[in-house]
Amino acid sequence: MNQAVTFPVETLLARVEAIYRRAGLNMVQATSIARVIVAGERDACKSHGIYRIEGTLRTLKAGKVRPDAQPRLLAGEGEAILRVDADGGFANPAFDLGLGELAKRARKLGMAALVINDCTHFSALWSEVEGVTSEGLACIAMCPSYSTVAPAGGNQALLGTNPFAFGWPRPGGHPYVFDFATSVAARGEIELYRRAGKPLPEGWAIDADGQPTTDPDAALAGAMLPFGGHKGSAIGTMIELLSAAMIGDMNSRESLDYLGTTALAPKHGELIIAFSPERFAAGRPGNPFDRAETLFEAIVGQGARLPSQRRFQARDRATREGITLSAEEVALLDRLHDQGLDAIS
Amino acid sequence: MNQAVTFPVETLLARVEAIYRRAGLNMVQATSIARVIVAGERDACKSHGIYRIEGTLRTLKAGKVRPDAQPRLLAGEGEAILRVDADGGFANPAFDLGLGELAKRARKLGMAALVINDCTHFSALWSEVEGVTSEGLACIAMCPSYSTVAPAGGNQALLGTNPFAFGWPRPGGHPYVFDFATSVAARGEIELYRRAGKPLPEGWAIDADGQPTTDPDAALAGAMLPFGGHKGSAIGTMIELLSAAMIGDMNSRESLDYLGTTALAPKHGELIIAFSPERFAAGRPGNPFDRAETLFEAIVGQGARLPSQRRFQARDRATREGITLSAEEVALLDRLHDQGLDAIS
Repeated sequence: MNQAVTFPVETLLARVEAIYRRAGLNMVQATSIARVIVAGERDACKSHGIYRIEGTLRTLKAGKVRPDAQPRLLAGEGEAILRVDADGGFANPAFDLGLGELAKRARKLGMAALVINDCTHFSALWSEVEGVTSEGLACIAMCPSYSTVAPAGGNQALLGTNPFAFGWPRPGGHPYVFDFATSVAARGEIELYRRAGKPLPEGWAIDADGQPTTDPDAALAGAMLPFGGHKGSAIGTMIELLSAAMIGDMNSRESLDYLGTTALAPKHGELIIAFSPERFAAGRPGNPFDRAETLFEAIVGQGARLPSQRRFQARDRATREGITLSAEEVALLDRLHDQGLDAIS
Repeated sequence: MNQAVTFPVETLLARVEAIYRRAGLNMVQATSIARVIVAGERDACKSHGIYRIEGTLRTLKAGKVRPDAQPRLLAGEGEAILRVDADGGFANPAFDLGLGELAKRARKLGMAALVINDCTHFSALWSEVEGVTSEGLACIAMCPSYSTVAPAGGNQALLGTNPFAFGWPRPGGHPYVFDFATSVAARGEIELYRRAGKPLPEGWAIDADGQPTTDPDAALAGAMLPFGGHKGSAIGTMIELLSAAMIGDMNSRESLDYLGTTALAPKHGELIIAFSPERFAAGRPGNPFDRAETLFEAIVGQGARLPSQRRFQARDRATREGITLSAEEVALLDRLHDQGLDAIS
């Protein structure tokens, strides 16, 4: 009988990596994915933690992601564009491959974009954003998903939950980072309500007939709503344009058509833009990083929270004290390790 | 006694330009400003039409914008960054000066940014966005404003209404364009409620004590709220970082400190990013513009509207039939023309 267990971060990382290796992923895929899954768990971001392992294995079992993918760095057309072909694998190893060159180009030109093509995406974009901020660069990242969100004024799913993420480096501390779905809620959150048997808050979703609903199942069969009405809807549409049509990759509708289900991780591309604050500020008064700190102090000083603040507190705690998983979660890891793809219904 | 008058677009343009010339603006300033003011009126976007003339003249009278400013194109640090020094004048002539080179660099590199510094901004960003889309490029534009918006969870004004704008070129038609304040409402909208003596909708603002209010005066003395709760607040913060701290220009708080009032047009910078869809899509399947059209059809096909659709309809009508101003509006133009800065209290 399992009990709750507290793992050092590195131990949990090795354990998750082993699950993926036994399930048939090559080293480059397994390493990157395990890192992002454990990062979610470490940051107390449960909807992007070990709960996601089953979905990735299900996607693998369905033949919708390549376990032996070897991402390749391509010479982009136009020096400010860097392209990584994910080779049908997960987005994370493709990002890891491109980050160094992206940072180099952003420092040289002032700004550069990393396009990831042909990837399966299952994690939060803060992972990519924090990679870029760790290079001392600001970052905007976005990607489509699969059609689960109705445009404002519409009555059926077309857009994805289309995350929009941003990061700003803070010397000597955690970066300023936000990363949110452009739907009112992330699909993972609705899934958690469904599992808990709880009704959704009002305004999150419409049913298959286009009527408002608080039933998670009806919502999953219908459509979610964009955050902030027509404004969030517009941003979600922008994300379809810039990180699907523009980069020559699947949009949310095409991804859903390709998969035939929302039970698998979506396939599409990603757009990650890196900015060099030093370059942009050159010749102007003031240090951009110092000026940003003054802004953050003014936000926190009036009692408002910075986004990701709780996540970073959880990270600091986990780094010190380890990550505690419940008995059920430990049993899940054991089962996924021992049974591999056979554990997936 | 004046009556309602219908002007051909070019006639109104000449009339507004004459107001600015008589008020002391040089040709480059007067031409660009008149064009953007008349564009607002033509598009039935009254909050950015001739109603704005008084505010610009008030800013001029207060000595907070230079009537003889000559924007200068500077060699940016980093080839993807182009900088225009607005020379303390309005943003629009600076943008007009930089657009051609911005487009050239975006086509060459795949992506480029135009930074405008030391400008007074009083118009909507869709003007800049449509300039970029007319070059066949996609565009993200943003700028701060002055502190009138509380961050989510806060109780006092810090952020500006910080517009976020995006455009995508549509061959043979009006572009896909959105441009919205990251506050629930634009400050101009609250001003229109105040003038009409009408209460604000719930959720737009807090008073000076941080309490919810529907009184326009209390809202103008307190703070507006971000759209979409913490998500809109995060985007508003991103805009302070990218288009103030990063580009070495005033943020919303600094701009308000500089002006000492919200009755004048704010001074700060602007960030305009141009993307070449051809470059980004190179080597990938599908034409990005065709794929975008399929998306727009799916949005419109389910009864949802594209942003700016009503604005473009108004534009087409005004281009055919002219712009009709009320008797009061015509009298305002006459007064501003004849009395110049003396008409400004």
